[in-house]
Amino acid sequence: MPPTNPARRRALTDAAIELLASSGVHGLTHRAVEKAADVPPGTASNYFRSREALLVAAAERIAELHHADTAQAVKQPATLVDLLTESLFTAATTLRTRYLAIFELQLEAARRPVIASALAGLQDTASLVTAGHHDELGLGIPRGRIPAVIALYGGALFTLVSAPPEHVTRDVVRNMAEVIVYGCNPPT
Amino acid sequence: MPPTNPARRRALTDAAIELLASSGVHGLTHRAVEKAADVPPGTASNYFRSREALLVAAAERIAELHHADTAQAVKQPATLVDLLTESLFTAATTLRTRYLAIFELQLEAARRPVIASALAGLQDTASLVTAGHHDELGLGIPRGRIPAVIALYGGALFTLVSAPPEHVTRDVVRNMAEVIVYGCNPPT
Repeated sequence: MPPTNPARRRALTDAAIELLASSGVHGLTHRAVEKAADVPPGTASNYFRSREALLVAAAERIAELHHADTAQAVKQPATLVDLLTESLFTAATTLRTRYLAIFELQLEAARRPVIASALAGLQDTASLVTAGHHDELGLGIPRGRIPAVIALYGGALFTLVSAPPEHVTRDVVRNMAEVIVYGCNPPT
Repeated sequence: MPPTNPARRRALTDAAIELLASSGVHGLTHRAVEKAADVPPGTASNYFRSREALLVAAAERIAELHHADTAQAVKQPATLVDLLTESLFTAATTLRTRYLAIFELQLEAARRPVIASALAGLQDTASLVTAGHHDELGLGIPRGRIPAVIALYGGALFTLVSAPPEHVTRDVVRNMAEVIVYGCNPPT
């Protein structure tokens, strides 16, 4: 039976996310995770059989954190431009490590089908979650535009997270958020 | 004196781009480039002193190819939505390898300042080139939106290039291009 201490599993997964951001996909090994989490050799492979299992666990954890933050954010009254601006700005500053890690995984997925499947599952969840917010908030964008908005939001996140941090200002981010939101309706 | 056979230099750089896409930044070594380009050991380091020089050369070559393609595309009469749709679609299908390679470099740049400087130079060129097209074509978008359009275009490219190829259809791409273009003007 695999070990099931949730706190330890989480500590290992968080260490994996840090490693993805700091050293890339190649730097993420069981041994590196054990060192970063300060646990005995062999611990990581008890929880995650393969490197792929470790990569998938990191992806799932990031998705979980992302959805929790989003659910929290949409509780505050705000325009969609404000929501996207705050979400993108926080992701590219305070939470930069987390999103650098997911983009490492996304590029690795282009080479490894098993990672691609795991991320596709997360993407489907993201679409459902967004559609849910859409219904709940009445975001004022046509439903047919939701896939484009999700794709552009993800792309904007990549551009911001991979840019030099000093280039990421609220003004830059708001400009991008405005284009995404205003563009959902055809020009009149 | 470093060797200066332009055809060989280009062959090595093209091999480097292929390797970045197929094996990631970590897979790009002098030896791997020599094997891929079928040249004797030591050739690659004659042209590129360090791994960083190799990474920078790959980035410069991709930027050069990208600008040449763009200059070609803007000669054809088309709306901005058509231009962006074709450019994004071709980049994410026929030219997928090239853009996977640049995104590998972009994430590596978040860890290595020297790569970040090289890419920043390319980014400045991109802005100038785009502003040039803007003046030439009268693209009908406010000048203040150009940075957001470039950022969203780059992000859209990442999303499309890293997605499973079967998800990339002209409809999906056009939807994204429309949002980017329509969003440049405030809703009326």
